[in-house]
Amino acid sequence: MKKLINKPEDVVKEELEGIVFAHPDLVRVHFAPNYIVRADAPVKGKVGIVSGGGSGHEPLHGGYVGIGMLHAACPGEVFTSPTPDQIYDATKAVNGGAGVLHIVKNYSGDVMNFEMAAEMAGADGIEVASMVTNDDVAVQDSLYTQGRRGVGVTVFVEKIAGGAAEAGMPLKELTALANRVNENGRSMGMALTSCTVPVAGKPTFELGDDEMEIGIGIHGEPGRERMKIKPVDEVVDMMADAILTDLPFKSGDRIIAMVNGMGGTPLIELYVAYRRLAQICQGKGIKIERNLIGNYITSLEMAGFSITLLRADDEMIKYWDAPVHTPGLRWGM
Amino acid sequence: MKKLINKPEDVVKEELEGIVFAHPDLVRVHFAPNYIVRADAPVKGKVGIVSGGGSGHEPLHGGYVGIGMLHAACPGEVFTSPTPDQIYDATKAVNGGAGVLHIVKNYSGDVMNFEMAAEMAGADGIEVASMVTNDDVAVQDSLYTQGRRGVGVTVFVEKIAGGAAEAGMPLKELTALANRVNENGRSMGMALTSCTVPVAGKPTFELGDDEMEIGIGIHGEPGRERMKIKPVDEVVDMMADAILTDLPFKSGDRIIAMVNGMGGTPLIELYVAYRRLAQICQGKGIKIERNLIGNYITSLEMAGFSITLLRADDEMIKYWDAPVHTPGLRWGM
Repeated sequence: MKKLINKPEDVVKEELEGIVFAHPDLVRVHFAPNYIVRADAPVKGKVGIVSGGGSGHEPLHGGYVGIGMLHAACPGEVFTSPTPDQIYDATKAVNGGAGVLHIVKNYSGDVMNFEMAAEMAGADGIEVASMVTNDDVAVQDSLYTQGRRGVGVTVFVEKIAGGAAEAGMPLKELTALANRVNENGRSMGMALTSCTVPVAGKPTFELGDDEMEIGIGIHGEPGRERMKIKPVDEVVDMMADAILTDLPFKSGDRIIAMVNGMGGTPLIELYVAYRRLAQICQGKGIKIERNLIGNYITSLEMAGFSITLLRADDEMIKYWDAPVHTPGLRWGM
Repeated sequence: MKKLINKPEDVVKEELEGIVFAHPDLVRVHFAPNYIVRADAPVKGKVGIVSGGGSGHEPLHGGYVGIGMLHAACPGEVFTSPTPDQIYDATKAVNGGAGVLHIVKNYSGDVMNFEMAAEMAGADGIEVASMVTNDDVAVQDSLYTQGRRGVGVTVFVEKIAGGAAEAGMPLKELTALANRVNENGRSMGMALTSCTVPVAGKPTFELGDDEMEIGIGIHGEPGRERMKIKPVDEVVDMMADAILTDLPFKSGDRIIAMVNGMGGTPLIELYVAYRRLAQICQGKGIKIERNLIGNYITSLEMAGFSITLLRADDEMIKYWDAPVHTPGLRWGM
């Protein structure tokens, strides 16, 4: 195992210590239970937004805590759900009196632990609403998941809901907006290589030297099909077809598009993939209004990428464009 | 070779086509000869800044073209110097009447071709000043290089000079500032794995399963020492010691620090490395005023990282903080 770490069991703790050194202007970190919270939390009179999940997907979620996005993030161990007490404490820390929204990726452990934390916070009199992302079109049920997995659209939900919360949107309306983003978003990923969870010490799965896996999950869960490597244009064609026909996206749609690296993919390759995606959308009369190209929801050092497309309305684009200042996403300030 | 590409010889062209689709608000791309130029170039009455070098280091340099940073970038083929005609044409395209600054990393081919282009532009009556970055403390001479290699400080020079040019600094003063940044910056890198140049089709060098290389160059040039993998704290200790004693940095110094991923390194590991770097600086009374943690000057999919430290004065920090809007770096707007 080749990793820039000390002890495998200390990776998350030491990453959080790095965040403390790096971003004291933006966030505070609470240890045991672990959560990252906006430096100015709780923001009085505004809805607090909490997300979280296993570590190893950085910058998701901790890198999205700051102004205009998440109010707190709860990092579990690598590829492991955060515990209810982490989420409960983070929920209390961001409660500014206007309620708290939980953004949860659809993995059974995450869903269960966020539910438990919401109940605990509710018993304290904190109004908590929850929404679950499930945008991965690759497979219906999966390892760790009933229904579809929550992947790239989570970045979009966190940004758009974060912008709306900053603008003072009340909890009920905010929850509806977050759900609308999820319902209009679709994703699919692929892998050229596996990744290695530090405490496991060996690759999560094996892939031949000439093989790739289409529809891979962000924890290496099996996808749709394992096949020989093809030119990236053909790979993008397959993925875009699966995504576009699923919603379905139609001529005249305006979208926000993300070509996301899994962690071990050079940026130059992501632009080659984006080129093909843009050609496909152009050919179908679908207008890419905004784009993100880079590493936003990763799987440690996995080589591969995912595509997320969001059919966006004016309100979504307005809050997408709203100022954001987090370690992982920043514009307008 | 596992890559998200079509034909190896088309990678750079297709990446540039991706940039055309992705960032029409920020940049234009000229093909044959290839260069990326600010959408609003030439900026009348202000110095134009041109950089460039081999592709494969993205976001450097093309990702730093935009408001407040580079006016143009000339991408060569992967790990190959740009040609004089690329640089000459880019220089003409950004000439707004106040002269042009060339920022060149110290590799013999880059230096030679930028010199030739500067002469050609000079013959046209364009005032061109050049500065060469050479911040890599690892080795004195290297494959492709006489003297020290130019690496991470190039990002700092491009940002700080870019901010100053935007503010209207004249060419002579701007060149002096760029040189001062280089003179006060030091870097060192390391690799856990090699990378594969697409047209080569096989790894640039071989490294054992339990080995790492300290002092690696961004094209895989040999470093100081190949050794067994150690805990990242020990790796950072070695690299920081080499960097800090070289300038030397002293108690009371204010610095801008970058922990840069080589392309295949998970962000979580970069934060673990940053933690140790911050501890070391704190222990020595060196104050990290600003930081960058992520992929800023890469080597395709190489796993590894580099550290760049810049002893910064007020003027450098002022232009570091100045608004920037490029595909690869953005704040304040």
